Amino acid sequence: MTSIKPLRDLGLSTGKKARLHRILYQHGLRNGTALFLPYDQGLEHGPRDFFANPAAGDPNYIVKLALEGGFNGIAIQIGLAEKFYWEYAGEVPLILKLNGKTDIPSDDAALSPLNATVEEAVRLGADAVGYTLYVGTPAQEHDFAQYLAVRRDAQRLGMPLVVWAYPRGAAIEAKGGKDSFYAVDYAARTASELGADVVKVNFPHPEKRTGVKAPYEGEFSSQSAIDAVVRSANRSLVLISGGGRAGDDAMVEKARQSMEAGATGLIFGRNVWQREHDESLRFVARLRDILAKYPSH
Amino acid sequence: MTSIKPLRDLGLSTGKKARLHRILYQHGLRNGTALFLPYDQGLEHGPRDFFANPAAGDPNYIVKLALEGGFNGIAIQIGLAEKFYWEYAGEVPLILKLNGKTDIPSDDAALSPLNATVEEAVRLGADAVGYTLYVGTPAQEHDFAQYLAVRRDAQRLGMPLVVWAYPRGAAIEAKGGKDSFYAVDYAARTASELGADVVKVNFPHPEKRTGVKAPYEGEFSSQSAIDAVVRSANRSLVLISGGGRAGDDAMVEKARQSMEAGATGLIFGRNVWQREHDESLRFVARLRDILAKYPSH
Amino acid sequence: MTSIKPLRDLGLSTGKKARLHRILYQHGLRNGTALFLPYDQGLEHGPRDFFANPAAGDPNYIVKLALEGGFNGIAIQIGLAEKFYWEYAGEVPLILKLNGKTDIPSDDAALSPLNATVEEAVRLGADAVGYTLYVGTPAQEHDFAQYLAVRRDAQRLGMPLVVWAYPRGAAIEAKGGKDSFYAVDYAARTASELGADVVKVNFPHPEKRTGVKAPYEGEFSSQSAIDAVVRSANRSLVLISGGGRAGDDAMVEKARQSMEAGATGLIFGRNVWQREHDESLRFVARLRDILAKYPSH
Amino acid sequence: MTSIKPLRDLGLSTGKKARLHRILYQHGLRNGTALFLPYDQGLEHGPRDFFANPAAGDPNYIVKLALEGGFNGIAIQIGLAEKFYWEYAGEVPLILKLNGKTDIPSDDAALSPLNATVEEAVRLGADAVGYTLYVGTPAQEHDFAQYLAVRRDAQRLGMPLVVWAYPRGAAIEAKGGKDSFYAVDYAARTASELGADVVKVNFPHPEKRTGVKAPYEGEFSSQSAIDAVVRSANRSLVLISGGGRAGDDAMVEKARQSMEAGATGLIFGRNVWQREHDESLRFVARLRDILAKYPSH
Amino acid sequence: MTSIKPLRDLGLSTGKKARLHRILYQHGLRNGTALFLPYDQGLEHGPRDFFANPAAGDPNYIVKLALEGGFNGIAIQIGLAEKFYWEYAGEVPLILKLNGKTDIPSDDAALSPLNATVEEAVRLGADAVGYTLYVGTPAQEHDFAQYLAVRRDAQRLGMPLVVWAYPRGAAIEAKGGKDSFYAVDYAARTASELGADVVKVNFPHPEKRTGVKAPYEGEFSSQSAIDAVVRSANRSLVLISGGGRAGDDAMVEKARQSMEAGATGLIFGRNVWQREHDESLRFVARLRDILAKYPSH
Repeated sequence: MTSIKPLRDLGLSTGKKARLHRILYQHGLRNGTALFLPYDQGLEHGPRDFFANPAAGDPNYIVKLALEGGFNGIAIQIGLAEKFYWEYAGEVPLILKLNGKTDIPSDDAALSPLNATVEEAVRLGADAVGYTLYVGTPAQEHDFAQYLAVRRDAQRLGMPLVVWAYPRGAAIEAKGGKDSFYAVDYAARTASELGADVVKVNFPHPEKRTGVKAPYEGEFSSQSAIDAVVRSANRSLVLISGGGRAGDDAMVEKARQSMEAGATGLIFGRNVWQREHDESLRFVARLRDILAKYPSH
Repeated sequence: MTSIKPLRDLGLSTGKKARLHRILYQHGLRNGTALFLPYDQGLEHGPRDFFANPAAGDPNYIVKLALEGGFNGIAIQIGLAEKFYWEYAGEVPLILKLNGKTDIPSDDAALSPLNATVEEAVRLGADAVGYTLYVGTPAQEHDFAQYLAVRRDAQRLGMPLVVWAYPRGAAIEAKGGKDSFYAVDYAARTASELGADVVKVNFPHPEKRTGVKAPYEGEFSSQSAIDAVVRSANRSLVLISGGGRAGDDAMVEKARQSMEAGATGLIFGRNVWQREHDESLRFVARLRDILAKYPSH
Repeated sequence: MTSIKPLRDLGLSTGKKARLHRILYQHGLRNGTALFLPYDQGLEHGPRDFFANPAAGDPNYIVKLALEGGFNGIAIQIGLAEKFYWEYAGEVPLILKLNGKTDIPSDDAALSPLNATVEEAVRLGADAVGYTLYVGTPAQEHDFAQYLAVRRDAQRLGMPLVVWAYPRGAAIEAKGGKDSFYAVDYAARTASELGADVVKVNFPHPEKRTGVKAPYEGEFSSQSAIDAVVRSANRSLVLISGGGRAGDDAMVEKARQSMEAGATGLIFGRNVWQREHDESLRFVARLRDILAKYPSH
Repeated sequence: MTSIKPLRDLGLSTGKKARLHRILYQHGLRNGTALFLPYDQGLEHGPRDFFANPAAGDPNYIVKLALEGGFNGIAIQIGLAEKFYWEYAGEVPLILKLNGKTDIPSDDAALSPLNATVEEAVRLGADAVGYTLYVGTPAQEHDFAQYLAVRRDAQRLGMPLVVWAYPRGAAIEAKGGKDSFYAVDYAARTASELGADVVKVNFPHPEKRTGVKAPYEGEFSSQSAIDAVVRSANRSLVLISGGGRAGDDAMVEKARQSMEAGATGLIFGRNVWQREHDESLRFVARLRDILAKYPSH
Repeated sequence: MTSIKPLRDLGLSTGKKARLHRILYQHGLRNGTALFLPYDQGLEHGPRDFFANPAAGDPNYIVKLALEGGFNGIAIQIGLAEKFYWEYAGEVPLILKLNGKTDIPSDDAALSPLNATVEEAVRLGADAVGYTLYVGTPAQEHDFAQYLAVRRDAQRLGMPLVVWAYPRGAAIEAKGGKDSFYAVDYAARTASELGADVVKVNFPHPEKRTGVKAPYEGEFSSQSAIDAVVRSANRSLVLISGGGRAGDDAMVEKARQSMEAGATGLIFGRNVWQREHDESLRFVARLRDILAKYPSH
């Protein structure tokens, strides 16, 4: 078991440390772990994601769920933050997702455009901002340029920067795909080299080996793969993304392996709210049981 | 029957609330519903739209029609606002349409460029601004970037932002087309996620199913489709666009279903002014009869 | 007993509400009351204030005392915030005091110059900023101008603004003095009229009547005076300042009357730390007992 | 013996720490102590200060003396830095003195105007900037305002800020004078509250008691006075100024007491260069012998 | 043997000279030569480069290695600088690498986007900045434009600019490849013409002649090729890049020839840290033995 990286050892500025401390020690289990509720699928995939549980289409339902479930934060776009967060302001941390796009046009040269600024996150009392970096697309240079401005604003204003580090594009598809150990490991490292305070990655699949670079062609257990990914992120905290809905036991086991590897926590959306309310909370309780076993003080 | 969303529950800033209150409670039926007259077709389609009723080519005729018809506002481009609104300033609310384009070049990667600014809307005494967002085109990232600046100005200046949420582009055509339930629903949600105060959509066509995402492949009544669209817009008020000229009874029935779904009102142009003056007013009277049945206090 | 003003009824923006919620409900007694530790006397009076308890000259001792005493926040100047807050970032809220001065030159036309900005408060993760407004001095116009810029930055960035509303100058001395009911009442109202989110005032002395305006010449109990002051502040929360060291019982009774009047809390410095460590905590415990009786939910 | 404050415990940003490390550990005795050569007397007092040793009027002579004497840095105005530092760039650290004035007009409301910027210090490869803050003058509010801009630039660019904390003005003269324990102690604290990384003060004279605040009226040894001043500076490093030429033994004893109190070092100008070259170096050797006894690691 | 170019003859501004002096004479062998440790491979190639020695994936291990090995500097991206350099600030010079990219998408029109600014390098106390210029790609015009802004900032702030002068793209592949004498020589000259203070090149391969321009078709010894390259760089200092892991003896011989040609030093990454810790230091010792033979005073 690798221990979670303690805040004081991460080279954080005062403001970033203050805000991450609030997220990690004044919400959720208050033990340095984190469970986040991402809710930008209405933009990223459209309302189709809410058909499984129509109540989840209402942002108010989701913010309340975040409170009831004891989440450490909710990640939403500016429109929902402007119209729904006031009522709960300060009760659950806000991670303002700064960029986002629809999935209608082709993803070949994916770039997620900015929809809000770090200063707006400050204005709304957010405790972190989120940025989706598509690692490996042909649009990489535009993405890095857009990201640079966000990172500098976040540095200037002491705002923790959570990077959704997502491998994408044709070259990634040809080299193992976006969930391969190679791709996820590279994405985690890229976010770290570029100054992410927190990196959100998908769980790596070491069995996806077609086209990956030589060192990744070997046999790796999923535990050794996630261990490596967390190490690649070095002083960036790691969050494991739930991704699309999957079996609960498998998700819980992924969560356990992630925490064992030294991840700080989980960011689970559809697996949480694509089911009936009380069932959501029961699943959340299972995730919290895992997190409770990995305190960081 | 879903009730119209009351202003006080929408997370609006003081200035936005003041201006929307003027539009919804001091004009038209003064009951919280809205009937808008859009008049940017001269730019969007060219003067061909005025051949059915040449008098309608004169902006002065249209502004007077808006007054006579008891509209809650008129949506026009900067040029007409500069030259025609002075005379009626304050008598009928002005929605300054900020972007717009001709329909001469291809629509494949449609982007509607800015022709005016939020600050100009303030200068002219406008009570809202309008922005056309083409959801799903390959130009999406440029559109979002342009929109971001508009939204921030509107936020800073307390100006309500009405988003013309229009699905467009090759990918949309391949996934059910721009009027499909899938496309309209996604567009409404996108505008809401990106901070629209009011969303203008076309009436959804659930029968357009070719290529749509799985959840939209089922059978949906038009009522259940428009219900879903209004829900997807959550705290953004919804306006239903009339679109091209169609049969009056069909239009009135669409209007009724929209209001039943919780829409705030209608934005009807060609269906209103592509006919002789008194006929226009008779059709407007039928629309007002509908709106009168859905007061919001 | 007047109840404390609840946050949701104060016309606060999202960010200000989020930050005040953190201060009032996630620290201290978590019941909507507040106990703040001000520590800018090293600048305002010089190190002489630390001779009574030399340990108090060390800012680290004071921040720890704030944690041990369960304070809702600590108010310090930028120099101490830069060098001492990192270690405790997020554990106790920071109120960055933006202006301040030495007491060496004459106070006749007192103006407290800016030493830091609202943006720096954001950078350091502060939850509020403090500004000393000298009400009634000949320098009033410069003070108001300087304050205007601070207030606008605070508004833009969603940062609660705490105004030290201090009557000062020759004219005040001629009209009852800086602690008269007349002067304190006027100062509270001035801060409220100028947009303070929280007003810090000294406890009013209705018996100081020489030279005050006619309505203040009558007999007022201290309870009725503090009642009036809190009413004058209307939707600005009120904090009562401890001022110089005085008898404990008298201070506790002032605290009780203030809370009874609807004040949100207390801001006591020298009365707390100008004594030995454990004695400080015992006095704080008495203050907390008072606050516990006036919860706001 | 109080130990020198180690860099890692001072709440410094990366750039400030890097530059102070260079000054304290890569120059001079390389043991964490510092000996600086100030050379702005040509501006502050005029060439009269060079009559004792005309060679010292040549800045080139002085920079070479700083190298020969193993100084940790030289503090000069922009004009001399521009014209004389290139030749020795990097060999001895440059402290660019940002403000300065002649002593021709009255000092009653002294304010030292800016002659250069922090960015110019960066351009010249300086490792620190110096600012004279006149504590207690009627011009205090203008001084603080000017200082604020300098401090923010220094913070933004990671440049250590050395504050010449000098009590001045009529009120100071009436309260013990500029060298009184009261005045020096207050000045050290003021610089610390306002964010100085290093404070330069004169050695305090506890025997100057006429008009000082009560706590300073007692009997204090010079050691206890300098101890208190270093404590008042808390996490700002302290440099003791040599001031005008005085007896060598007295100066060396002051130096010893200062280091004993926890000061980081000395900044001696006239006492060094107002004598013949080799004599200067012999005096410097005595100072270095003191510093060698107070290493900080 | 050509002698190393002395700093005073290079037309450097004061700040650039100060910083290069620190790098060349206050670190490493302190004799005017340089050995740099580049560590941006985690971004440029991904974590696969760390599989040979997993410890090397930890930036902290690398910075310590730079200290133990007596390197003159470490070249890293902003993310690692922000989170790992504070601890060692000032102990080993920082070269902040300003641009960088992943190697996932095609290199045909390679452009390395900016991830940080010169001002950030100043803020972090860096002594130089690094920029990768891809000489000869179709994206050359964007690269030059981006470089222009960096060079101007470096000029304004007195920051030495190290250019990674790398021939790249289809045209280069058709004209001898990126390591040909022709390509390396042209790249060195390009960097010099565009204002590099230091040029980093790969060792030229005169035997790669297919497609090169006529003058490079002759027989050249590797010594005469590197001699020419250093001459092409004229007053830009030259660093020879180690590139991928190769045989130690070959590397050492390359190093010797480079220094013989008048290069200032070496920048070796994978050849250093892709092996066990003590082995790394033994290899570094061999490189230092070479550098010791080429002092520049």
